[in-house]
Amino acid sequence: MRERYAEELRKLNCSIVSMGKMIEIAIQSSVLALMGRDRDAAAQVSKNDDAINAMERDIESQCMRLLLHEQPMATDLRMITAALKMITDMERIGDHAVDIADLVLSIPDCTYGRMCEIEEMSSEIIGMFDDAIQSYIGKDYNKAKNVIARDDVIDELYHSIKKDLVERIRQTDDGETILDYLLIAKYIERIGDHATNIAGWVVFALTGERE
Amino acid sequence: MRERYAEELRKLNCSIVSMGKMIEIAIQSSVLALMGRDRDAAAQVSKNDDAINAMERDIESQCMRLLLHEQPMATDLRMITAALKMITDMERIGDHAVDIADLVLSIPDCTYGRMCEIEEMSSEIIGMFDDAIQSYIGKDYNKAKNVIARDDVIDELYHSIKKDLVERIRQTDDGETILDYLLIAKYIERIGDHATNIAGWVVFALTGERE
Repeated sequence: MRERYAEELRKLNCSIVSMGKMIEIAIQSSVLALMGRDRDAAAQVSKNDDAINAMERDIESQCMRLLLHEQPMATDLRMITAALKMITDMERIGDHAVDIADLVLSIPDCTYGRMCEIEEMSSEIIGMFDDAIQSYIGKDYNKAKNVIARDDVIDELYHSIKKDLVERIRQTDDGETILDYLLIAKYIERIGDHATNIAGWVVFALTGERE
Repeated sequence: MRERYAEELRKLNCSIVSMGKMIEIAIQSSVLALMGRDRDAAAQVSKNDDAINAMERDIESQCMRLLLHEQPMATDLRMITAALKMITDMERIGDHAVDIADLVLSIPDCTYGRMCEIEEMSSEIIGMFDDAIQSYIGKDYNKAKNVIARDDVIDELYHSIKKDLVERIRQTDDGETILDYLLIAKYIERIGDHATNIAGWVVFALTGERE
């Protein structure tokens, strides 16, 4: 009985890691599509989103089964509850990757000079997301807290891009396309928020305290 | 047996109408909060979102029960499947109302002259959303098709606002706050997309054809 329970918990962890990988690929592909102006890659992100949504449902069922049939206690109970909440944030990150990919498909060719800042922001959020998932799997409190602290860096980068975009709109004739880059930066910033939420759930799972 | 089934279908419709009302209030409150710069109203939208999410789960369970236990056929089967898909779009509309309310809380006081256009856009999407829900309840094909046709109006309004924002950024010192209005217009435009999706599901329920 307990063996089956341990096995199911292991399976839940594997599923979370898999879903995490799928989402990481979605973010990376949407950013690469943006950098390389690759329409095929962008279209692929939307197609893969169905698999991410299906994965969320699957993990949700696993959590429900564990909660209802195994009646877990203390940390286990909180780990499963946290998983149930985390997957909503994970799924939303997938949606924002699709939002970015959709914009790549609609933006006319245009070179926005501060691409490197958007790239920096996206590397940062991919790192945060990866660490948030790892902190769950490794039950690593410090790693989770570190993710939460890094959200300020993302906010700063977002505001710097925002300020720069205003300048660029004043200097160029193609202001409307520039505005689309604001939306992209905003989606990346929101991905950072969701990664921070995930880390917050890990802290809850490990300590019982909500940030 | 059949009586209980009919009763459950009626209950499903009532739940969809209730969830629709909750979402309509969320959109209206977030737009009113924006117009009146009412921070309390904006904060309330976020709080009410949990109830909308819970309602989505409840309707999902109702649909699942009907699908698994009653084995509905033809139009009934499609109506229930459509409900299952529609509630995802409905829940996302609720999220965008929260997105708007969150921006109201973060935007410093600033008078953006084209508020009336944002108000026009939001009246239009509230009407579309209301009609989409009504078309489901009344099994009204023409009403659903009409919602889908109106999405172009929203897109035009969005592009007009976007063009205007570029101009305003060039003329004002407070360009960054102006950018937040772009995000608001974008969220409203996305609400229009989701209302259109809902109407698309109604067309599917009634005809078996996906738009």
